Amino acid sequence: MAKEHPPRTEISQLGEFGLIQHLTRDVQLRNKSSRYGVGDDAAVIDAGSGTVKLLTTDMLLEGIHFDLSYHPLKHLGYKAIVVNLSDIYAMNGTPEQVTVSLGLSNRFSVEALEELYAGIEAACEKYAVDMVGGDTNASQSGLVISVTAVGTAKAEDVVYRHTARHGDLVVVSGDLGAAYLGLQLLEREKKLFREDPTLQPNFEDEKYIVGRQLLPEARRDIIELLDELKVRPTAMIDISDGLSSDLLHICTRSALGCRVYEQEIPVAEETRARSLKFNMPPSTAALNGGEDYELLFTIDPTDRDRIASSVDLTVIGEIVRPKDGHKLITRSGQAHPLVAQGWQHLSEK
Amino acid sequence: MAKEHPPRTEISQLGEFGLIQHLTRDVQLRNKSSRYGVGDDAAVIDAGSGTVKLLTTDMLLEGIHFDLSYHPLKHLGYKAIVVNLSDIYAMNGTPEQVTVSLGLSNRFSVEALEELYAGIEAACEKYAVDMVGGDTNASQSGLVISVTAVGTAKAEDVVYRHTARHGDLVVVSGDLGAAYLGLQLLEREKKLFREDPTLQPNFEDEKYIVGRQLLPEARRDIIELLDELKVRPTAMIDISDGLSSDLLHICTRSALGCRVYEQEIPVAEETRARSLKFNMPPSTAALNGGEDYELLFTIDPTDRDRIASSVDLTVIGEIVRPKDGHKLITRSGQAHPLVAQGWQHLSEK
Repeated sequence: MAKEHPPRTEISQLGEFGLIQHLTRDVQLRNKSSRYGVGDDAAVIDAGSGTVKLLTTDMLLEGIHFDLSYHPLKHLGYKAIVVNLSDIYAMNGTPEQVTVSLGLSNRFSVEALEELYAGIEAACEKYAVDMVGGDTNASQSGLVISVTAVGTAKAEDVVYRHTARHGDLVVVSGDLGAAYLGLQLLEREKKLFREDPTLQPNFEDEKYIVGRQLLPEARRDIIELLDELKVRPTAMIDISDGLSSDLLHICTRSALGCRVYEQEIPVAEETRARSLKFNMPPSTAALNGGEDYELLFTIDPTDRDRIASSVDLTVIGEIVRPKDGHKLITRSGQAHPLVAQGWQHLSEK
Repeated sequence: MAKEHPPRTEISQLGEFGLIQHLTRDVQLRNKSSRYGVGDDAAVIDAGSGTVKLLTTDMLLEGIHFDLSYHPLKHLGYKAIVVNLSDIYAMNGTPEQVTVSLGLSNRFSVEALEELYAGIEAACEKYAVDMVGGDTNASQSGLVISVTAVGTAKAEDVVYRHTARHGDLVVVSGDLGAAYLGLQLLEREKKLFREDPTLQPNFEDEKYIVGRQLLPEARRDIIELLDELKVRPTAMIDISDGLSSDLLHICTRSALGCRVYEQEIPVAEETRARSLKFNMPPSTAALNGGEDYELLFTIDPTDRDRIASSVDLTVIGEIVRPKDGHKLITRSGQAHPLVAQGWQHLSEK
């Protein structure tokens, strides 16, 4: 009798979010200091006296999250910090510490690592956080950067994903889709350069979208603005996977539906222009692009007037009953299902 | 005129510890909550009301820190957690939370990841810590596991590396060298198996040393024991790089010297037997092996009697004036310089 092989389920059958849900389905919280675990932008840990520590971690891998042929190491160090701080702001907290672990091959010189650290330090300085530790290792393959950020907040100030309410307005900061189009542009130029090394890319007219990809910022200013305006979001997330995917996280966790109006989605002029040159509807980049690191949140409808004067905040839809589903209302008034098309690295491989 | 190349310094010229010191030399702590940053087993973050949070992170990379041809995924998951908890105990703290970030290629099935997570969960259960978050990514190459652990302690209970005092005794828990010899044995069997696949390894007599490599434990029991005995270490570190290297960390940070007596270094019978079969002095494995995850600490000499009854604690030397250097006193009474020969992954590549 032939030896039976154990069953084999491919990761792609579950997808990234399905995989995480599957692997963490039995996780229990044993310590009373663990207020909130897997499932939000950051974990929430009790720190006594009504304060909590927020804990988040993000790993960037060469060839998956970045390409050193066009991502300067200094920018990459900056970005590795910023994407973690963005998760702390998305909980309405203040980041204060980071740790940085690296996997390095010997193709990196000390001078190259100094560049990477200069970017890390620049981000720490800008956002007033401290690098308090890390781990430096050899890697047999590409560069790996794993950052953990710790933030602080009053317990009652923390904003989760699962607390949106029926009737709330959906609001987004800044504009969307630029980081994704910046990436597409960089990838195209890389391909052209490979075919003809005499070609030199000219990003003069597209600095904005390229910058959004290579050197993103976290929206500390929006957290401060909302505090000044005395607007407390009912639920919040940062846009790392794309508007569709991240809004669906809020809806799913809150067990509610949503309507998003295509014509309201903020897209910068440079993003629109590049999108059209790529024959892509700008709203497609905005809905599915990811890596914008804008804040997406819900507010009570009575707070609409308070945010009306801010050019950096746009109401793009509303939270509805679960039976009304998750809908994108197009410019022509048609209702399409909102579908998560965020990053699917794991199923692409 | 030829274009000048920028200067290139190889990582191997600095070594791992030199590299970290070089890259973090300008790091400043901006937040008053950052009590202690780079340079100990864990960072110390103020949590108010006289308590602190301890934060540590360790990254394990395939081909550098583990070899899946002999490291079962379940054991690997367990070890990835334990090595981080060991750092929290080495600060005299209690670990409570971990995050786990993974880089995965599609050669892993969901079932394989379930094994890895079963090991992670087993360690979390044994040490009563909670997995509160993480990040799952594709990897273009090997498996990468990055764990961050958060612990808690009263501020006055934290034990650092830099606080040893002249005249203190040097104490180590358990026995040393086994994990290193387990690794050597596994590597040898792998090589033999490659040459003749009909050979099946028999580890029956060497379960102890193989287990110390594949499935280490963190010494929570020692922290609890010292608390019961009312012995507060003056300085402490966990042995991850090897006794020599880690004792030199305590000495360097405390600006003091040390004397270690070769005949006092605890080595298990199985370790001694395997070492001699490899024609290696057992004390060499104990001094330079690493990955034992025992606790190495200094105590006031008046505490010697309190620990005398514990078979799991051994006084191996003393802290001396800096001018007396760092010395290993051999069985024949000769004084040799104690040299750090810990892991040097980065210079080997």
